[in-house]
Amino acid sequence: MKIAVMGCGIVGTGVVEITDNKPDLMKNSAGEPIEVKYILDIRDFTGTPYESRVIKDIDIILNDSEIETVVETMGGIEPAFTFCKKCLEKGKNVVTSNKALVAAKAEELFSAARENNAAFMFEAAVCGGIPVIRTMFSSLSANNITSFAGILNGTTNFILTKMINEKMSFDQALKIAQEKGYAEKDPTADVEGLDAGRKTCILASIAYGTHVYPEEIHTEGIRKITLEDAAYAASKGYKIKLLGKADKLKNGKISAIVCPFFVEGNSLISGVNGVYNAISITGDSIGDVLLYGQGAGREATASAVVGDVMECARLKKNEKHYYWAEHQEDIIEDYELYENALYIRGYAKNASESIINIRESFGGVEVLKREDAPENEIAFITGKAKEKELRDILSELTDFAPASIIRIL
Amino acid sequence: MKIAVMGCGIVGTGVVEITDNKPDLMKNSAGEPIEVKYILDIRDFTGTPYESRVIKDIDIILNDSEIETVVETMGGIEPAFTFCKKCLEKGKNVVTSNKALVAAKAEELFSAARENNAAFMFEAAVCGGIPVIRTMFSSLSANNITSFAGILNGTTNFILTKMINEKMSFDQALKIAQEKGYAEKDPTADVEGLDAGRKTCILASIAYGTHVYPEEIHTEGIRKITLEDAAYAASKGYKIKLLGKADKLKNGKISAIVCPFFVEGNSLISGVNGVYNAISITGDSIGDVLLYGQGAGREATASAVVGDVMECARLKKNEKHYYWAEHQEDIIEDYELYENALYIRGYAKNASESIINIRESFGGVEVLKREDAPENEIAFITGKAKEKELRDILSELTDFAPASIIRIL
Repeated sequence: MKIAVMGCGIVGTGVVEITDNKPDLMKNSAGEPIEVKYILDIRDFTGTPYESRVIKDIDIILNDSEIETVVETMGGIEPAFTFCKKCLEKGKNVVTSNKALVAAKAEELFSAARENNAAFMFEAAVCGGIPVIRTMFSSLSANNITSFAGILNGTTNFILTKMINEKMSFDQALKIAQEKGYAEKDPTADVEGLDAGRKTCILASIAYGTHVYPEEIHTEGIRKITLEDAAYAASKGYKIKLLGKADKLKNGKISAIVCPFFVEGNSLISGVNGVYNAISITGDSIGDVLLYGQGAGREATASAVVGDVMECARLKKNEKHYYWAEHQEDIIEDYELYENALYIRGYAKNASESIINIRESFGGVEVLKREDAPENEIAFITGKAKEKELRDILSELTDFAPASIIRIL
Repeated sequence: MKIAVMGCGIVGTGVVEITDNKPDLMKNSAGEPIEVKYILDIRDFTGTPYESRVIKDIDIILNDSEIETVVETMGGIEPAFTFCKKCLEKGKNVVTSNKALVAAKAEELFSAARENNAAFMFEAAVCGGIPVIRTMFSSLSANNITSFAGILNGTTNFILTKMINEKMSFDQALKIAQEKGYAEKDPTADVEGLDAGRKTCILASIAYGTHVYPEEIHTEGIRKITLEDAAYAASKGYKIKLLGKADKLKNGKISAIVCPFFVEGNSLISGVNGVYNAISITGDSIGDVLLYGQGAGREATASAVVGDVMECARLKKNEKHYYWAEHQEDIIEDYELYENALYIRGYAKNASESIINIRESFGGVEVLKREDAPENEIAFITGKAKEKELRDILSELTDFAPASIIRIL
């Protein structure tokens, strides 16, 4: 399958790299090779492996019947929307990572796709590599989705994590986020909740089957959150998280909101720190499902785009076949050759002497203590080594009888 | 699409119920109605809505060309394997929740599916409703999967959670698990790690493209774990979890193991408690992705089976179209009508008087304290009510100036 990439910025470059560098994976998993034939960009990429593929005119893509799938990684609504629509009207599949486009224009693009028997896919548009779009559209399709709530913006989650865990002010934390490249110079779209709002709209549209527009949902950012708020939250075991949340109400309407919430400190979502994202989805049959991962980043986002491209290739061939090969000989490694640190608990006649011996034999261990332990009990954690080696050392200890061995993840 | 259900036990009944009870969802999401025409079972289901559909002879299914997809929820390897293979050889799609069958026989069934242009799908076979199969096969297909580790058995996770959080012995915790129906009378398959082992094999087979058999991987259960181990783990911030884990090694081999591990207490996977399951997958582009949800249970598992059936319907029509409808008027509810509890922080001239007034106005609040708070600062959490009502009460307080309002999830 030959494809074109429109817009070779951060994500677009990632798409070309994965496609260029993993030919075997493409062939095995998509059922055929995938090749980037054109790169539509205003730059020339002189002296790079991209140079010969760069074009400046969308018509070259539109008029080349070899191009079955087009990747849109330009960003913004125009000219992305016009280009995508034209591609779909030519019967070409479109895969995009552009959440502004999907949030504003998906319904028109779906129609163009249906009318021309092409696919319009956008796994990468919401939370980069987290497979939330496919999960909602396909895996959970036997469920009525009753609600979802998610940490959908990594920048604000990074800032809140710094504020809560390191008692940093909003301004200090924002500055670090900007230095690390997580926040833009003008951070408005992130900190005011607009980015999370677009993603909330896309997810609500899938969950409830009707287009929900960004301007319709109440959106609050995190600028007003103070360290005092974080302290009060902590005093009752809460953490503060910016969530996008939508519920199907009993009256048939949709409630959707983006704003900071207190979340219980022992909930999974409260443990999502830094630039990571997570989405909790509730279905009427499945109960709660949570998906977690990197919500942004070149590689993660690009791999989601290429995943959609490969799905287009499989669908084209009406490929319904999951697959793995028959077992080859000698493919499983002996588990005693894996490297692990081990926790070991056991007993010795003379514990203090035995510990000296254990330390020496293993070349250093971390001795553990517990309340009310009997005097002859010893517990420790070894360094990381092949399990066989550690067990060999252990078996040579004459003054120590192991009772329990547990691997450290 | 007409389907047959082979084996109408716990999961099979769930499949028939979802299909019978959600005709609109089937039609909208799969693109056509889905109807259970036959139920193959040794029981008669006399007096139930199933009675007229019960059959005893697999040949009725095999010889009925109307049946496009067959659900196998019998369990065990035979006769499930023979029945599934015959269905595939007739060009019928097979959807199964049977992990023993997939772990032992998938490769043969894949071949039968490919040769006869039918689908063989098994999302429900690993961790019930968690969409790990589709995620690995499709969403992450642009990644080389380098490793995964998961809590794949809810029964053992329930027992370990009880041991760690409530200082219960293994035997006590097992007894409660049996009383709650989480553990069987003979709990061997769960507590010895055999069930987690089968799931580990299925996931390793997908991740690394080669069939991995249960008898090839080292498997340890949780019978030997003691409260002393849990105490030592806790003393260093660890929790004990039974994990199924597999890595692709640099030498090309696969390491795969099922055994208890110490996991860091601040990791997401350590927060997975009770009968819940979670799988962390690492890909070379995407980094870490974690999926979490109910790993068992009639409804969750059945909804995964029906999700696969609907996918078969979509694939049949070469359906590549994600879809939502154009926006209808008045579908978004005013956010101030949502019910929430609110955290409110603000200032009062006379805090102790103001608190009395606040309590009275809201009909009871939970007052929060923090160190070094100024005397005139007040923070509290209201009861749950429509946000508008709470804000109206707040606006009528003359002796309190709110500075921060955050919703409680």
